[in-house]
Amino acid sequence: MADPQQTYAQLCDHARKTELLTSVTNVLGWDEQTYMPPAAGEYRADQLAMLASTIHQQATDPQVGDWLAELESSPLATDTESDTSVVIREMRRSYDRKTKLPADLVEALTRATSIGQQVWVEARKANDYAQFAPKLETIFKLKREEADAVGYTECRYDALLDDYEPHTTASQVEPVLRSLGKALVPLVAAIGESKHQPDMSIMDRDFPVDVQAKYGSDVAKRIGFCFQGGRIDPTAHPFCTTLGPADVRLTTRYNPRDLRAGLFSIMHEAGHGLYEQGLPSEKYGLPTGEAISLGIHESQSRMWEILVGLSHSFWQHNYADAQAAFPAALGDVALDDFHFAINESKPSLIRVEADEATYNLHILIRFELELALVADELSIADLPAAWNAKYEQYLGITPPSDALGVMQDVHWSHGLIGYFPTYSLGNLYSAQFFAKAKEDLGDLDAQFAQGDYKPLLDWLRTNIHQHGKRYTAADLVERVTGKPLSSEALLSHLSDKFGKLYRL
Amino acid sequence: MADPQQTYAQLCDHARKTELLTSVTNVLGWDEQTYMPPAAGEYRADQLAMLASTIHQQATDPQVGDWLAELESSPLATDTESDTSVVIREMRRSYDRKTKLPADLVEALTRATSIGQQVWVEARKANDYAQFAPKLETIFKLKREEADAVGYTECRYDALLDDYEPHTTASQVEPVLRSLGKALVPLVAAIGESKHQPDMSIMDRDFPVDVQAKYGSDVAKRIGFCFQGGRIDPTAHPFCTTLGPADVRLTTRYNPRDLRAGLFSIMHEAGHGLYEQGLPSEKYGLPTGEAISLGIHESQSRMWEILVGLSHSFWQHNYADAQAAFPAALGDVALDDFHFAINESKPSLIRVEADEATYNLHILIRFELELALVADELSIADLPAAWNAKYEQYLGITPPSDALGVMQDVHWSHGLIGYFPTYSLGNLYSAQFFAKAKEDLGDLDAQFAQGDYKPLLDWLRTNIHQHGKRYTAADLVERVTGKPLSSEALLSHLSDKFGKLYRL
Repeated sequence: MADPQQTYAQLCDHARKTELLTSVTNVLGWDEQTYMPPAAGEYRADQLAMLASTIHQQATDPQVGDWLAELESSPLATDTESDTSVVIREMRRSYDRKTKLPADLVEALTRATSIGQQVWVEARKANDYAQFAPKLETIFKLKREEADAVGYTECRYDALLDDYEPHTTASQVEPVLRSLGKALVPLVAAIGESKHQPDMSIMDRDFPVDVQAKYGSDVAKRIGFCFQGGRIDPTAHPFCTTLGPADVRLTTRYNPRDLRAGLFSIMHEAGHGLYEQGLPSEKYGLPTGEAISLGIHESQSRMWEILVGLSHSFWQHNYADAQAAFPAALGDVALDDFHFAINESKPSLIRVEADEATYNLHILIRFELELALVADELSIADLPAAWNAKYEQYLGITPPSDALGVMQDVHWSHGLIGYFPTYSLGNLYSAQFFAKAKEDLGDLDAQFAQGDYKPLLDWLRTNIHQHGKRYTAADLVERVTGKPLSSEALLSHLSDKFGKLYRL
Repeated sequence: MADPQQTYAQLCDHARKTELLTSVTNVLGWDEQTYMPPAAGEYRADQLAMLASTIHQQATDPQVGDWLAELESSPLATDTESDTSVVIREMRRSYDRKTKLPADLVEALTRATSIGQQVWVEARKANDYAQFAPKLETIFKLKREEADAVGYTECRYDALLDDYEPHTTASQVEPVLRSLGKALVPLVAAIGESKHQPDMSIMDRDFPVDVQAKYGSDVAKRIGFCFQGGRIDPTAHPFCTTLGPADVRLTTRYNPRDLRAGLFSIMHEAGHGLYEQGLPSEKYGLPTGEAISLGIHESQSRMWEILVGLSHSFWQHNYADAQAAFPAALGDVALDDFHFAINESKPSLIRVEADEATYNLHILIRFELELALVADELSIADLPAAWNAKYEQYLGITPPSDALGVMQDVHWSHGLIGYFPTYSLGNLYSAQFFAKAKEDLGDLDAQFAQGDYKPLLDWLRTNIHQHGKRYTAADLVERVTGKPLSSEALLSHLSDKFGKLYRL
């Protein structure tokens, strides 16, 4: 009988080696999005495919299965919150998922989503859903097969959701999202009917891109993002990626006429980055050094983007600097007018441009449609009509075209099904954590008004970041806030904030 | 008996796969020099070490030796200039070199050069040769062992030189460098004694870095560097690296008070880049798609930096643009004064700052010292005195300190012994090619004066780039110019150019 400590060390060594390769992939991916010359894409794809195949081979090495089987019945797995237990549990989860997928299904999905994305680009441009439908049909068919291969207890959708939000089920998410939706519809209507509306003309002015870059990077530094182990670059779409234990890279895009695009992307991505920088670096490459889930990750980005960046108290401290940096654009704008304008709320067609009050309705629509599609209760042919009906029902607007409706997101063409709910989970977790942080830390607004974000960041580090994947998302929320996930905190934040802004 | 065509296909496939990994290493290396955050260095070293070990394993796979043995006695190796022969010859060369080195010697060298570099940095700062000497002793000792393990026909130095300038021997290089040195000493003396000297006050003015970056990139584009498959970034030390068949990256450093630093580095690195972009991309990863040697590579960079960039005809076309880009610095400077100043020649202590007339004397000194050290005819203890004596003899100046003398270059601490001569070979090849290009293409100066660099670039592509490693450097020179390597063309260029400038 082998020594479990020794087996555990081998397992960890194997995991760290696999992560070493994965992190190399992340360098290539970051470069591809930031600086790679246009003609280099084909060879870059070859490099990435070669690494992906090596990583898959390593991650599915039967040796890992043997080690896990041995460790699962060893004392190292007894205390479920111990480092060893967490590593064993999470490596089993990911090993099973990878080994259960037949190679020909993985290949078929790779092909279908590669074609799917190309056709989606064309079809959206031409507003031609009929062109995209058969590809989408194939993708959903293969994703159903994936779910069946991976397995599930309650419903097929869970197997897909689990890839992004581990250990979370539709039955946990659905009631919360529905209760959120139910309360948001009248709030959004009341906001729309208010006579007190922001002056949006002040949001279309000159913001020189180089000044924005400097200002945004200063703000990231102020909230605690460490540039010794990180940086910010411009890209077409903002993202955050980790290339190593001390190498977290943010990107943003600047709109020379609108400060919001660049700055709040930076704060959003810096929120992701602060989580990554707060993970225990000595556990890098192990589940104990990794983020829990996309939803928990998104809770950190939304915390800094919205609960900090869009708060009145944040601007009490930072607005003078912003006026000094952009005198032509902001010199004649009062703080309150600026704050009201950056928080404008209004039903709109496009999810990625939605404000925080309407945003989760966009997600609820997608979540309900995904549930029905995965359960084979809605056909791809009927999807556009169902989409439009829900936009009418929840947001009171009807998409004038499928390009601005059902085809607006890249996710489904990419095979990302079960991914959308993590955005709303992020908002929900974020509000619930923030409410608890306020209880623990006292008047956060007074701290923000002094430019002091350290208590909040330290609280997040202590309560969330340092744990890696120790707890599941649901356990963490309950453990930290003392309550299970609910829509209460988010709804209370939204009705309070927008009630004040719009004088409801 | 296996089918040689099939074996050859396997060999090529293997080589391309190894190059795929090597190119990933190059992405990591480029990122490390350009954008990597400071704290990320340690993990980056882990990533690189892991890849290096995989690459070494692949490159020394005994299967490669078996394939080569089989192919060497097959018809595929008969026509020495055929693609198959070249691939077999060059893969044998590199396979033998890698497999002949004992693993413990490789490890000892890695350790010795890693320590050597650290101590060199400290010792140079403290001007303390005694501190560096024992490390340098070890490095030379190990490099002698490396040469003996690799093997040689004529002299031990050849085994080291061959790593940078394949198929080239000291007996080919030595007489040419000595005859060059013999003629340069009186030329340099005459330049120094001339009463006609450039006004160097015009070389220390304001050149805004962002304008330099734009201007330098325009110049690179004008001479043919393709930005679809390449880019330029700022770094501490300029370099050119290839990350894929359509991904050639140049770097430069800008001095805000001196146009020369950034611009001529760009032209130099663009010369390297044009060579890389001119190699047959469909043969990428095979010796037939690779540069011949460091010397031939340097011939391309020096061609564009010096023979084009420092020529009077180049500035006839480009000076008006430069004046428009830098009106404050160049508005009141006449073309001829500018051209004379950028071509100032004067003996100086530091190789990397030397002008084209004195540069090769710096190399001759290092080459002579390396020969003696490798042959055990000079001791590490006597090296500083020997260095200073040669600077007095060849350049008429005596280093005031070892920091500005024998410890100025990073190469030896890095284990790069046998590398220096490739710089002079580059200058020699460059002049010899350029003289022949003039014969073939007519009045190149008239073309430059029209801003037309395409005939020269096409000539280089046809005569040099497209061949990859088909010919050895010596064969290529003879084949292209009809003459073996000699100092004639370079000396004729230098005495003609500096004769005119300094009215000798």
